[in-house]
Amino acid sequence: MKYSYISHLYCSKCGENYDPKVIHQLCQCGSPLLAAYDLEELKRHVKPDHLVGRESNLWRYHELLPVEQKENVVSLGEGMTPLIPMPRLGQDMSIPYLYMKDEGIIPTGTFKARGAAVGVSKAKELGVKELAMPTNGNAGAAWSLYAARAGMKASVVMPLDAPKITRNECAISGSNLYLVNGLISDAGKIVAQAVKDYELFDASTLKEPYRIEGKKTMGLEIAEQLGWKMPDVILYPTGGGVGIIGIYKALRELQQLGWVQGKLPRLVAVQAAGCAPIVKAWEEKQAVSEFWPDSSTIAFGINVPKALGDFLVLDALYQTEGCAIAIEDQAILEEQKKIASLEGAFICPEGASTFVAARRLRENGWMKDGETVIALNTGSGIKYPETVHVEVPVLQPGELIRRNSKIY
Amino acid sequence: MKYSYISHLYCSKCGENYDPKVIHQLCQCGSPLLAAYDLEELKRHVKPDHLVGRESNLWRYHELLPVEQKENVVSLGEGMTPLIPMPRLGQDMSIPYLYMKDEGIIPTGTFKARGAAVGVSKAKELGVKELAMPTNGNAGAAWSLYAARAGMKASVVMPLDAPKITRNECAISGSNLYLVNGLISDAGKIVAQAVKDYELFDASTLKEPYRIEGKKTMGLEIAEQLGWKMPDVILYPTGGGVGIIGIYKALRELQQLGWVQGKLPRLVAVQAAGCAPIVKAWEEKQAVSEFWPDSSTIAFGINVPKALGDFLVLDALYQTEGCAIAIEDQAILEEQKKIASLEGAFICPEGASTFVAARRLRENGWMKDGETVIALNTGSGIKYPETVHVEVPVLQPGELIRRNSKIY
Repeated sequence: MKYSYISHLYCSKCGENYDPKVIHQLCQCGSPLLAAYDLEELKRHVKPDHLVGRESNLWRYHELLPVEQKENVVSLGEGMTPLIPMPRLGQDMSIPYLYMKDEGIIPTGTFKARGAAVGVSKAKELGVKELAMPTNGNAGAAWSLYAARAGMKASVVMPLDAPKITRNECAISGSNLYLVNGLISDAGKIVAQAVKDYELFDASTLKEPYRIEGKKTMGLEIAEQLGWKMPDVILYPTGGGVGIIGIYKALRELQQLGWVQGKLPRLVAVQAAGCAPIVKAWEEKQAVSEFWPDSSTIAFGINVPKALGDFLVLDALYQTEGCAIAIEDQAILEEQKKIASLEGAFICPEGASTFVAARRLRENGWMKDGETVIALNTGSGIKYPETVHVEVPVLQPGELIRRNSKIY
Repeated sequence: MKYSYISHLYCSKCGENYDPKVIHQLCQCGSPLLAAYDLEELKRHVKPDHLVGRESNLWRYHELLPVEQKENVVSLGEGMTPLIPMPRLGQDMSIPYLYMKDEGIIPTGTFKARGAAVGVSKAKELGVKELAMPTNGNAGAAWSLYAARAGMKASVVMPLDAPKITRNECAISGSNLYLVNGLISDAGKIVAQAVKDYELFDASTLKEPYRIEGKKTMGLEIAEQLGWKMPDVILYPTGGGVGIIGIYKALRELQQLGWVQGKLPRLVAVQAAGCAPIVKAWEEKQAVSEFWPDSSTIAFGINVPKALGDFLVLDALYQTEGCAIAIEDQAILEEQKKIASLEGAFICPEGASTFVAARRLRENGWMKDGETVIALNTGSGIKYPETVHVEVPVLQPGELIRRNSKIY
């Protein structure tokens, strides 16, 4: 029984193989590397029943993760986030089997913790001492904190407009934080140069092969939480796209293991109307996206004008008969409020966009009656306080609440 | 097999019994009511092994919780928060078996979700339509959101100085939020009057018997996560005190069930130096505390100058040979930073206070070599961004990171 059944790395474009025991970034051809596992051997030794009673975090799937020695695991207890029924919201949008996979309930408050936990653990295993990355905020916060736990140095560059709280997370972790008066693409260029100049490990999205393995566990958990059944649809807020690629990879691996049967769920990439390169490419049936100029959205985490893994996202959509859809900021904010007042969940705008998408795809008939639909909320609303407008009366001690005031 | 083995309510002071099938607030004598269970019957039907494979949230302990019908459960997937080893911090303070129970990894980002989930669920079961409560922020946020999920109205009064993010949570849930230019004790008086004037359900700390049952699950989880073994010491940041009372109640119930053996852990009530009524009472070996005038601390959640359940907290300390200790704000902030940079966890000041307490109690010999020590972090640091000072360079697109700058 091995802790991990990782066998090799392969290029997602040209197919070239690489050894997972040494540090790799991109393939020589410039494309992302992905991890492959010896699924035949894994299948002989591990059954879904073996997971029962394991710790309730993503390391319960360690055989399907790249870390080979348990002692290299750097964990803050991330994963096995709740899959929450949303009956009242579902009724409101005629989707009775609507669930939210709530990635707000995880260290650092966003799904980025998954990629950071697995990415940092594997980097530790490979002897990395210092990493660098661009970020829209949440990934940088997560990698900074996990790097700190691993005793590793981190340098992070984020846009000036990224959520303020993520700055605090980077700062308190002791990482080297820089702001850039621009977009994540500008941050990416600065990091690329620093990586070259100072021989740092580049932890940028898809420039190392293991972050996606962490994200993959969202797909594994959804399958396990549904009793190893597939839902009909999974909606994902899509920026860099690693979440949706990861879920697709997970479900395919589970299919090959025979742990799930039948058709894969239709995957839906949800983007903001102000930054929708994947949607445009999907509508035009393209294999890759184009850089989206002057991008802007309140859903900051998905403000990614051109994703390195765009072709993998689009392939996942085409292969699963999914789709891509763009949502305006105003609709996102209205849905965010509805979700809180009907279901008691204060979620991030990126997450709220998936519910608007579900609503619209049900309205236009793309989703059928009685389908099981999973909307991914990628982070907690408490990281985005500025999305909520608060106007509230101030009382003096001893003053009374008057029921016939405007509030009652 | 019953869903709940609740038998009755009893007064924590005079012992008077009450029927749990109807709404109760305080005992006629003015003291808090507590829930009792038919532990003998429970013991015959449920074994610790039965919990294996149950959902990883606090409802896995439903037999020890007050909700009698499963359909009344109002849940956002709260509980089974990680129990995280803290090896590097532990080494720094000579406590090799140091763990953090991380209540930041829960809906709404603080342990208050537990009390709200169980409290609102039971209120729903009893037919409550509208509740009111004073809060230092986080409890009000949690109860507002869970009430929204239950389709119940909530009115919340919080100090003007309470963490800003909790206002957003209340506002987006649709609750009636009021600020008071004073302390939680002032908010409490306003709520008490509104409860009387408008016949609302009073969800104030310990004025209804079920919030504590939710908090109790922290103790149940710690025991289960340690393999039904007791730790030596549990440190808890103490304001209203329901967390520590709940943990004590849980461990005693587990003892009576025979699920854990041996001595109870020594419970430590950690308070802020600027608001330490329990510490003062403990030092003077008193059974109750006195109102702490002009209280002030950055650890806002434990700024409670006089707790209704103070005598229960003190009793738990005396019974377990625990202690109480006060920590200054400056030491809290320094420890908060150390925890993030050594262990990658960005926790709230209340939580950080327990680590300072552990450090001091080890230094002065109160904790012995090799003891297993659990520090409770009651909430995520992301709800308290103002505790972190951020100073960070801003680059222009295309600018380079210079390694010989002040940062590298």
